[in-house]
Amino acid sequence: MDYIIGIDVGTTSTKALIYDTDGNIYGKANKGYPLYQDTPDMAEEDPDEIFNATVSAMQEVVAKANITDGKVIAISWSAQQHSLIALDKDFKPLTRSLTWADNRSQKYAAEYKKNGRGMEMYKRTGLPIHPMGPFYKLLYFRNEQPEIFDQAAYWVGIKEYIIWKYTGVLKEEISMAAATGLLNMNSAQWDEEALKETGVTEKQLPELVDTTDKFKGIKSEYAKIIGIDKDVYFVMGATDGALSTIGVGAIQTGVLAINIGTSAAVRTFVDKPRVDPKARLYCYPVMKGKYLVGGPINNGGIVLNWAHDSLFGGEVEAAKLLHIDSYDMLSKIAATVPAGSDGLIFHPYLGGERAPLWDANARGSFFGLNRKHTRAHMIRAVMEGIMYNLYSVTLALKEVTGEPKAVLAAGGFARSTLWTQMMADIFEHDIVIPESYESGSLAAMFLAKMALGMEDNLEDIKKYMGKETVYKPNQDVFKRYRTLMPIYLRLSRDLSKEYEGIADYQREFTDNDK
Amino acid sequence: MDYIIGIDVGTTSTKALIYDTDGNIYGKANKGYPLYQDTPDMAEEDPDEIFNATVSAMQEVVAKANITDGKVIAISWSAQQHSLIALDKDFKPLTRSLTWADNRSQKYAAEYKKNGRGMEMYKRTGLPIHPMGPFYKLLYFRNEQPEIFDQAAYWVGIKEYIIWKYTGVLKEEISMAAATGLLNMNSAQWDEEALKETGVTEKQLPELVDTTDKFKGIKSEYAKIIGIDKDVYFVMGATDGALSTIGVGAIQTGVLAINIGTSAAVRTFVDKPRVDPKARLYCYPVMKGKYLVGGPINNGGIVLNWAHDSLFGGEVEAAKLLHIDSYDMLSKIAATVPAGSDGLIFHPYLGGERAPLWDANARGSFFGLNRKHTRAHMIRAVMEGIMYNLYSVTLALKEVTGEPKAVLAAGGFARSTLWTQMMADIFEHDIVIPESYESGSLAAMFLAKMALGMEDNLEDIKKYMGKETVYKPNQDVFKRYRTLMPIYLRLSRDLSKEYEGIADYQREFTDNDK
Ligand SMILES: Nc1ncnc2c1ncn2[C@@H]1O[C@H](COP(=O)(O)OP(=O)(O)OP(=O)(O)O)[C@@H](O)[C@H]1O
Ligand SMILES: Nc1ncnc2c1ncn2[C@@H]1O[C@H](COP(=O)(O)OP(=O)(O)O)[C@@H](O)[C@H]1O
Repeated sequence: MDYIIGIDVGTTSTKALIYDTDGNIYGKANKGYPLYQDTPDMAEEDPDEIFNATVSAMQEVVAKANITDGKVIAISWSAQQHSLIALDKDFKPLTRSLTWADNRSQKYAAEYKKNGRGMEMYKRTGLPIHPMGPFYKLLYFRNEQPEIFDQAAYWVGIKEYIIWKYTGVLKEEISMAAATGLLNMNSAQWDEEALKETGVTEKQLPELVDTTDKFKGIKSEYAKIIGIDKDVYFVMGATDGALSTIGVGAIQTGVLAINIGTSAAVRTFVDKPRVDPKARLYCYPVMKGKYLVGGPINNGGIVLNWAHDSLFGGEVEAAKLLHIDSYDMLSKIAATVPAGSDGLIFHPYLGGERAPLWDANARGSFFGLNRKHTRAHMIRAVMEGIMYNLYSVTLALKEVTGEPKAVLAAGGFARSTLWTQMMADIFEHDIVIPESYESGSLAAMFLAKMALGMEDNLEDIKKYMGKETVYKPNQDVFKRYRTLMPIYLRLSRDLSKEYEGIADYQREFTDNDK
Repeated sequence: MDYIIGIDVGTTSTKALIYDTDGNIYGKANKGYPLYQDTPDMAEEDPDEIFNATVSAMQEVVAKANITDGKVIAISWSAQQHSLIALDKDFKPLTRSLTWADNRSQKYAAEYKKNGRGMEMYKRTGLPIHPMGPFYKLLYFRNEQPEIFDQAAYWVGIKEYIIWKYTGVLKEEISMAAATGLLNMNSAQWDEEALKETGVTEKQLPELVDTTDKFKGIKSEYAKIIGIDKDVYFVMGATDGALSTIGVGAIQTGVLAINIGTSAAVRTFVDKPRVDPKARLYCYPVMKGKYLVGGPINNGGIVLNWAHDSLFGGEVEAAKLLHIDSYDMLSKIAATVPAGSDGLIFHPYLGGERAPLWDANARGSFFGLNRKHTRAHMIRAVMEGIMYNLYSVTLALKEVTGEPKAVLAAGGFARSTLWTQMMADIFEHDIVIPESYESGSLAAMFLAKMALGMEDNLEDIKKYMGKETVYKPNQDVFKRYRTLMPIYLRLSRDLSKEYEGIADYQREFTDNDK
């Protein structure tokens, strides 16, 4: 029997899964690495630490699979988006990997937003105007670190670096290339204007290939450590966003995939490039006739984590002593409060926000407090607020792609049936929860099968997906959410006027050592 | 030795104090009574229950004073404002007493605000446009309870009813009369137009007298129960607002008196009637050349009580077990957070607000939340938000009366040195805390002495006031509050647009039986 490794290089860890060619799982491994934040604006990772994590994750799953007949025929790659590394002419890193969370190019994004050029670039490349984009990071290097900019022979992302290190091949597949903001989304080629603006030439960038591109050439030393054959195929794969969308089965145009993990995202495939006139959504090519449109959202489960720690610290301690899952406890507390939280509305922008606001200064708020409101109301309002925000991104998506045919949702939030039901009630739509949580690795594995000619229709991924659970909206509570949602949306606009002021205050006066 | 009783008929209880003529206290008593809220808009009290409370409070203090030589020579009255009772021709109540908190005339206040007549009446009478005002309550009775309106031979407040019941004398002093919205504040006579609008005639109202008006005539039965002589003087006294201002020593024009108890108020005396062009403040005559300008604020300590119960319920229970004052504990928790609460801003309008918004639909909010904010930040933000609100009323007062010469503050909040210091820092002004907490009764006693010719200068009340504590503003934190205050004020305006919507939601959907 033959095996395929699906590997997902995330921001906090790399997950590897090993499958047989029928999609059965034989082993999982998860290897973490640190984020370097020497200054508040910085969010870097060490490319070689991540490379080593991929080595040991694969080593672990290969050992777990305990392969006696057959072999690993392919390794297929999912990865975080928007990372940037400068390499010298010998491919030696001149920088760490600047992750999507690195904000040092904020100034350039702000400038481009203001003078309209950001909007022009967005229309060409599909990358929203935000410091996460390698396009803006290159402007930062060019202006503020010219010695590195001048010395850089190549500019790559973490996935390209890792694959190069394994094989000596420098390639970039189109979905990841699109996430740099340097790819023209119509031609699927490097965008001339984007290159001109950043002062980078095509020669400094990897060769562009399809997501199903495959090649051999792993260096013996790594094949040996991992315990696989030297003629294993590397399959390029795609971005984690694209693959997790495929991996929950949201293949058809108009089928929405929503993920709520630490962060969150709303995505759907369309058949040709579509830009949002308000630049709230990205759009990038993934495969022939498949463009991913979506909004990345900072404030997903991490906001519930905040409420968990900051509002219910004492109870969480108690839950630990009692060996109760403290997030289950929060859901139970939230369930004591009626839908709509008796008119308490929460905006979840604790850490600034990407979609739908694209405002790093955004902050959270509670609105509508009266004397009957308790912490139980707050926790329910937090869960509802996260959903209102996702719904507002979905509204933007609807403007671009029309009414959704189906809504598929995945991520840690789905461990709470209350929260998932809330989603159905707020979205007024059936919510389908696929069984598998490892959608990114699953889709990477499936792409490998397509690359190897073992599958030819993306839709067929569904046969590996296990059974689904469907949550149906509850008519009784529609009216509540329909009354609150317009207030939430209007407030979003009004509050946004004060975000810059309060964020400036917090930068100036917060005593970080407290 | 002779004695004087100062009695304060409050909304939740009546407090009586007995003094000798040198101002020494010989006894205190406090008698509570229920508030009737058969519907959410209703807030009534039983006039005879209150009368009985005054009897037993006085009985108790007289007993405590254990008078062997001399006698009680005067009873002087402070009382809650804006109450309204309909009496039939035999002075029998046709209604309970509608307190200031009764909102049934909301519709009429809203109508008068909209069509501009409320503003005209405010300019004549000094009563802000709000359902608390007997003027608006009369419109309610006339339109919605015509049988009572037609049957009513007299319309009085709770103080007038009580004094009538003791003595058979129906008088009303000008400060209380002004609080009805039926008194012309320039002439200090019943206002012709106000009478015309409400359809009430002068004959239906008590005789207008000065605050130092005195007379005898207590019925034997009551004198006997209380244990005093039949020739005791009744001294009219004034509203609780006026007397507590006098009682903290804020006599001179431009000296501010701030009270933060359950509710709160900012007040100052001026020498001639002054109206606020934006109708945020009341203005009424108290004595010759003394007009009280001020703003009544719903959201005082009651908001801290909410945070105490709703955000720190668990800790409060623990504090009780440990015999620690749980409000002291809250102050200690708030003190762990720096001034400005790391950029968290709270609007305290949990229960709607009178000054400065005059919006019964107003609600509370937290703004500026980031992941570092905890419940400790929330509690400090609550304390700061209550102060920001008081400061915003003070700003309105400054527009009308100029820079304050001094700021005197009293009420339960002053038990927290942290909170009092916060006031000095936010107001950027010395805050003077008088020793005595019973300022209303003290001033009632002093008015009696003036009525009896034993004092002639209001300023001399200071000799009965004990020593003061002064809190000086801390320069180091000015910049923080100066940055946050404008954001607070701008947000007040923006949020106010959504108050009606959220309050409507809460009225429609709050499950009150939960
Ligand atoms: N029992 C539970 N009920 C509700 N929510 C939960 C529960 N357990 C975890 N969560 C939420 O799920 C989140 C984690 O989700 P998940 O495991 O998908 O995260 P992740 O993979 O780190 O995120 P990302 O997809 O953004 O990288 C937590 O932030 C938490 O808020
Ligand atoms: N130790 C304390 N520290 C801070 N605030 C306090 C403390 N004790 C009571 N308070 C506040 O004082 C308010 C009561 O003030 P008080 O003047 O006694 O009330 P009232 O207006 O009912 O006469 C309470 O609502 C509470 O918020």
